[in-house]
Amino acid sequence: MTKVASIIGGGVIGGGWAARFAIMGWDVRVYDPDPEAQRKIGEVMANAERVLPMLYEAPMPQRGAITFAGSLAEAVTGAAWVQESVPERLDIKHKVLAEIQAACPEDAVVGSSTSGFKPSELQDGAIRAGQILVAHPFNPVYLLPLVELVPGAATDPAVITHAKGILTDLGMYPLHVRAEIDAHIADRFLEAVWREALWLVKDGIATTEEIDNAIRYGFGLRWAQMGLFETYRVAGGEAGMRHFMAQFGPCLQWPWTKLTDVPEFTDELVDLIADQSDRQSGHMSIRELERLRDNNLVAILRALKQQEAAAGRLIRDHDDRLRGPLGDDVPLVTVQRKIPVDWTDMNGHMNEGRYGQLFSDASEELMAHVGADRAYIEAGHSFFTVETKVQYLHETHAGEDIYVTTHVMMAQGKKLQLWHEMRRTSDDTVLATCDQFLLHVSLETRRSCPPLPKVAAAIDALEAQHAEADQ
Amino acid sequence: MTKVASIIGGGVIGGGWAARFAIMGWDVRVYDPDPEAQRKIGEVMANAERVLPMLYEAPMPQRGAITFAGSLAEAVTGAAWVQESVPERLDIKHKVLAEIQAACPEDAVVGSSTSGFKPSELQDGAIRAGQILVAHPFNPVYLLPLVELVPGAATDPAVITHAKGILTDLGMYPLHVRAEIDAHIADRFLEAVWREALWLVKDGIATTEEIDNAIRYGFGLRWAQMGLFETYRVAGGEAGMRHFMAQFGPCLQWPWTKLTDVPEFTDELVDLIADQSDRQSGHMSIRELERLRDNNLVAILRALKQQEAAAGRLIRDHDDRLRGPLGDDVPLVTVQRKIPVDWTDMNGHMNEGRYGQLFSDASEELMAHVGADRAYIEAGHSFFTVETKVQYLHETHAGEDIYVTTHVMMAQGKKLQLWHEMRRTSDDTVLATCDQFLLHVSLETRRSCPPLPKVAAAIDALEAQHAEADQ
Repeated sequence: MTKVASIIGGGVIGGGWAARFAIMGWDVRVYDPDPEAQRKIGEVMANAERVLPMLYEAPMPQRGAITFAGSLAEAVTGAAWVQESVPERLDIKHKVLAEIQAACPEDAVVGSSTSGFKPSELQDGAIRAGQILVAHPFNPVYLLPLVELVPGAATDPAVITHAKGILTDLGMYPLHVRAEIDAHIADRFLEAVWREALWLVKDGIATTEEIDNAIRYGFGLRWAQMGLFETYRVAGGEAGMRHFMAQFGPCLQWPWTKLTDVPEFTDELVDLIADQSDRQSGHMSIRELERLRDNNLVAILRALKQQEAAAGRLIRDHDDRLRGPLGDDVPLVTVQRKIPVDWTDMNGHMNEGRYGQLFSDASEELMAHVGADRAYIEAGHSFFTVETKVQYLHETHAGEDIYVTTHVMMAQGKKLQLWHEMRRTSDDTVLATCDQFLLHVSLETRRSCPPLPKVAAAIDALEAQHAEADQ
Repeated sequence: MTKVASIIGGGVIGGGWAARFAIMGWDVRVYDPDPEAQRKIGEVMANAERVLPMLYEAPMPQRGAITFAGSLAEAVTGAAWVQESVPERLDIKHKVLAEIQAACPEDAVVGSSTSGFKPSELQDGAIRAGQILVAHPFNPVYLLPLVELVPGAATDPAVITHAKGILTDLGMYPLHVRAEIDAHIADRFLEAVWREALWLVKDGIATTEEIDNAIRYGFGLRWAQMGLFETYRVAGGEAGMRHFMAQFGPCLQWPWTKLTDVPEFTDELVDLIADQSDRQSGHMSIRELERLRDNNLVAILRALKQQEAAAGRLIRDHDDRLRGPLGDDVPLVTVQRKIPVDWTDMNGHMNEGRYGQLFSDASEELMAHVGADRAYIEAGHSFFTVETKVQYLHETHAGEDIYVTTHVMMAQGKKLQLWHEMRRTSDDTVLATCDQFLLHVSLETRRSCPPLPKVAAAIDALEAQHAEADQ
């Protein structure tokens, strides 16, 4: 039977929860007296449906149904999970939790999305404190895995275990917070940064955009994959975390930020952190951690480049500056590059599909060379690949320098046939070949047609040059 | 003529600068009296050579030479850029800057990697204060684009412009900091977070690993692509930044972090921030910003998944939980999925190479189905693709649901031929086909050989079943 999740309180957070549950196969019942709730949740759901399944190679479960309940009691009856996402006022939360517990099953998990209150505050006066805990997610809830799962002293350990299992099945990461404090863990950092940012803007040191750039072109990229301590462990080098703290520790006494009350930097604190860091990352050498960090950064930066966004846009611009015109050698060298880590599997072998991408890049370079460049495409003309035949001759590995030569085999009106060879730079071994057949297309009519005269002439010239070289 | 960069002070930061300059075509002269400097810089250079070129599709410039100078004067003579990365003590920096200026060209840029000192402090007493500025990079310098470029009052505006151009040509992002303060911008955030983290560990609220997870599974992913303010602008919804601040503002008064001295939350401050945010992001609607954020997050998460690292590992594990065994329908459905944004170009069309990846995924599913799974590969056996012929019949777009059917055409000893069809889920239109020829290989000898009997039997059974269905 399909499990039921109750979402009490719509909005961006409640809507995000509803979308997670429904896309992962739960039926969802929403209760929110706001007449706009249905529209708002519908918008979040549309966003989530577009992107959450994109994270996966596996097929998605059968989508659950989202319905809107006429009363809170109707929404929570028979639910296996009830998630409260009402405004951050303790009196409202207490009232809503009491209504929930009056109607929901005794074995349901009752989670609160509160970003600030402690679970014991929420449990105060509850009829079954044992089923209540904080399950604090992060926006967008349908994409970010983190949920801070904070039990109070009264939370039943079986409920915690049960909740962790459900969150994991939703594709989330339940971070079991070992001690309850205001704002849990992550929001304390967000608060500290937000406050410092307000000072910087107020004092005219930086604008909002400059601050965002200072984050997303720098430490934001580090934190997306390693967080704070493991990043610093790597920075400490072979000497590790103790060395880093010895170096960086004294700076804490300097008046860099507005607020400088720091814990006393005792040997005990250094040992505590260094020991925890050893348990966290000690199974990898600094060299291995550096490789992990660098591979992750390459993969993230290239992912952003493919989106033409954030730091990736900088790299794309730099690509354009680095890229010179092609020569007129025969065979024509269309690509020269290093195989990046996002093109290889965990054994370092280049993935089958990336050969196709490489040859596609090669023909794109050739197109630009004959004048069928971005402007040509924007003006409504393009070559479409109709068929490719790739032969895989030798394995290729991450980090190898390779180049591609491209030969115009046939150019007849709208038809174009290219022959690509991918070679290892160090010894010119042919690693793979591609026989590519393209058709020139009008992007308006979506039908094939001959290229514009200037492009046709350039292609014909290449064909003649290449045919001559063959003799 | 190849330009010369002088790196004064090796180590991780100096080494990172040396690597950036050399890989981008500059000759590099290093001066560091540490007898270990050559080894240390060699290690950083090895890391950088492995990964920096991987960011690019364009060919790299001719690599510059890295040499080690016997004296500081020798290192800086004739240099166009001198970068000081010596220990963070003002007396040492003053001494080194004086030696640099005694020997370097008057039109060289003299940059300091200082993370804490203000440029005016560095310029104090200098013979040519105009050529000195702070150029503060972020580790790993060879991958992260951010450089905080902080001029002092005495810095020559032409030097600033010149420095920006050079940093951009190195593939970096010069963030021109408009007012000098201790620790510039980014390190003030790092300080604030570091201090809060120390309290959390000291007070036993969280371990180093839990803190790292709270960052890298949550807001770290947001910050890698949007930073702080644009993220919050999106969270504010259609009402924008003012609405967000009205909601979030009051929390600042709560005792969430150890240190709660906050700027007074005046209308002027709200206006200042909201206006700056409008200038930064006002050209996009909240809906567009949400799409940008979500596309970036999907791309980053999928990049990390491909590396089996950080949040990507969570998604890979979830994939494994979502993936059920294949059915035994004919034709066999091997893939069911949505086309993700990292598979498409800026116009939303699926890239040529990703068809190859899709069909490769299809054959991998078939392999697992017949027992040639990860364990089989780890035991030293595998199928290698020798040739593929792909026909591209219709355009495919991001977000489309598709499936792949796979037909065993021929199985003879070590030879295997598969026929894949990719179809649109909504109307079963065939979008592309792939004729794939594989050979079974021993991973030990790297030579072809028949599959193990159990796998061979399963493939033969499929071949017979598929042949029968054809009749």
